[in-house]
Amino acid sequence: MFPTVAAFDQALATLPIPDGAARDAAAARQDQLTKPPGSLGRLEAIAIHLASWQGRERPRIERARAAIFAGNHGMMIHGVSAFPAAVTAQMVANFTHGGAAINALSAAAGLELTVVELDLDTPTADFTVAPAMTEAECLSALNAGAAVVEDGLDLLVLGEMGIGNSTSAAALCMRSFGGTASDWVGPGTGLDGAGMLRKAEVVAAGMAAHADAPSTPFETLRRVGGRELAAIAGAVLTARHKRVPVVLDGFICGSAIAPLAAARPEIVAHCIAGHQSTEPGHARLLTRLELAPLLTLDMRLGEGSGAAVAVGVIRAALAAHDRMATFAEAGVSAG
Amino acid sequence: MFPTVAAFDQALATLPIPDGAARDAAAARQDQLTKPPGSLGRLEAIAIHLASWQGRERPRIERARAAIFAGNHGMMIHGVSAFPAAVTAQMVANFTHGGAAINALSAAAGLELTVVELDLDTPTADFTVAPAMTEAECLSALNAGAAVVEDGLDLLVLGEMGIGNSTSAAALCMRSFGGTASDWVGPGTGLDGAGMLRKAEVVAAGMAAHADAPSTPFETLRRVGGRELAAIAGAVLTARHKRVPVVLDGFICGSAIAPLAAARPEIVAHCIAGHQSTEPGHARLLTRLELAPLLTLDMRLGEGSGAAVAVGVIRAALAAHDRMATFAEAGVSAG
Repeated sequence: MFPTVAAFDQALATLPIPDGAARDAAAARQDQLTKPPGSLGRLEAIAIHLASWQGRERPRIERARAAIFAGNHGMMIHGVSAFPAAVTAQMVANFTHGGAAINALSAAAGLELTVVELDLDTPTADFTVAPAMTEAECLSALNAGAAVVEDGLDLLVLGEMGIGNSTSAAALCMRSFGGTASDWVGPGTGLDGAGMLRKAEVVAAGMAAHADAPSTPFETLRRVGGRELAAIAGAVLTARHKRVPVVLDGFICGSAIAPLAAARPEIVAHCIAGHQSTEPGHARLLTRLELAPLLTLDMRLGEGSGAAVAVGVIRAALAAHDRMATFAEAGVSAG
Repeated sequence: MFPTVAAFDQALATLPIPDGAARDAAAARQDQLTKPPGSLGRLEAIAIHLASWQGRERPRIERARAAIFAGNHGMMIHGVSAFPAAVTAQMVANFTHGGAAINALSAAAGLELTVVELDLDTPTADFTVAPAMTEAECLSALNAGAAVVEDGLDLLVLGEMGIGNSTSAAALCMRSFGGTASDWVGPGTGLDGAGMLRKAEVVAAGMAAHADAPSTPFETLRRVGGRELAAIAGAVLTARHKRVPVVLDGFICGSAIAPLAAARPEIVAHCIAGHQSTEPGHARLLTRLELAPLLTLDMRLGEGSGAAVAVGVIRAALAAHDRMATFAEAGVSAG
């Protein structure tokens, strides 16, 4: 999908738009169903959204996948996480054995689970002194993301695991949307106040180290991102070209498309923000992405967990859209 | 369950409390699961809530029911709804034939659906001139609610259908919690501004007509409520005594327990507010009930629809609680 940086840039420059005919047909159907118009609120909007990307009046979720990408981070040497880097691989093993939250939540939501381990033994470079990835490494990660978007998927849920990656997420947001390091830095998995100050310093140092580099989406991903974050960006962009609707998870997952959205705000048009995390930067990021979260359940785990829970709401939306009778079918007065 | 008013009062005076041992065991389990403590947010709280009422460390939802109560209203002669009263029976027929939102949403949530029609051919009396129900009628409705709480239910979802009943709901809230009629009156299924003014006048007239009557829960339900609302109150109270957790739907469903909560605030302890409706009185009511809604999806349909969607989140919470590995089981460092 992305053999070169130019191919990535080209994919971002040629984003497909939604299918207007399918969208209009779905909206017309909603207005005929036995309920006051608009009374199913966001359930109606979700059904119409999926119709417009799947290109059918009655969208379906028969084959849906949760893809979770894992990577390790060189800036961990600065003590930016409450957990040691070894936990990334331990949690990937936990995913493989079926014991993590995403295993339970993806099963409950009827999702296939794909876990993609990205060179865990080779952390990215410390972005305070060098680009996190070489050009080849970043392209490889983008393609690892593209590879999960198999033909025939009705929905794609994205998530991540990577000790230290809320620091990368803050850096991606700051390099994409500006602001100060403290606008984007939060406790992550449980840093205390001193830890957050250290983390903000690391983010600010990363900004300074790459201040003179181009602010293109690719360079931002490569310089201050991480493998699992580039993979998410690659998956979102590939899903767009295959017209597969995407459900984003929390702050870190969303930060992966911040560089793309800074250049092309319409990249989010096929995305649903599944859940707004308690990580303080997430509300700010969602505002910048112009996405309203479906759920706000005080979750802050990552792993695609919030997005997987949101799939239950999306399934409910499609059930109502598909199975309800129209006023004419049911013989109900339309008011 | 409620042969007499005294039996109802007695049930409300002797509310069971949650099982502290099961609650503590569930909370201890949450702290051992492979995630930072608290990172599943409200999913953790839901699992612990259900544990405390079901009396088991690992709560389950094997048998869950959505019970939807339908009634008609005498105050409809004042033009308080955008729909004609005949729609109540038409929608009950739609429920029976499987074409309504609640049919699709309860199926998607794995709920048995029970529809209880309450004397639709005999609307309640116009509460602006007389009590909506006789004592016998109100007791009968309370018992119709009690009857849906069969032994062996793991969860009970409640909802209603009744053209005009957002006027009853506003009256129940105002007589229970005070304020002005306009604090509690909203557009319902789609009233315009003039309609809302008329509706507020009807509510105020109802308050005046019963100003000298006792402000007990039973008298408030009987005088300004409706059959489907008394049934919901009876179901909530019976579920409490059987230790069955309840998921409440929107403004009208919640208003049914306002009179009970005004006398005994702890009546809500086994209840989850499934969804916050766009009906403006609902946020105010939830504040008075001290319940935080699980979902806010701009729904305003009733029929138990918002509560049914919330069951998907509750199932996700129990899946994580039940199926995740502990740190010890998974060999993951606990930070």
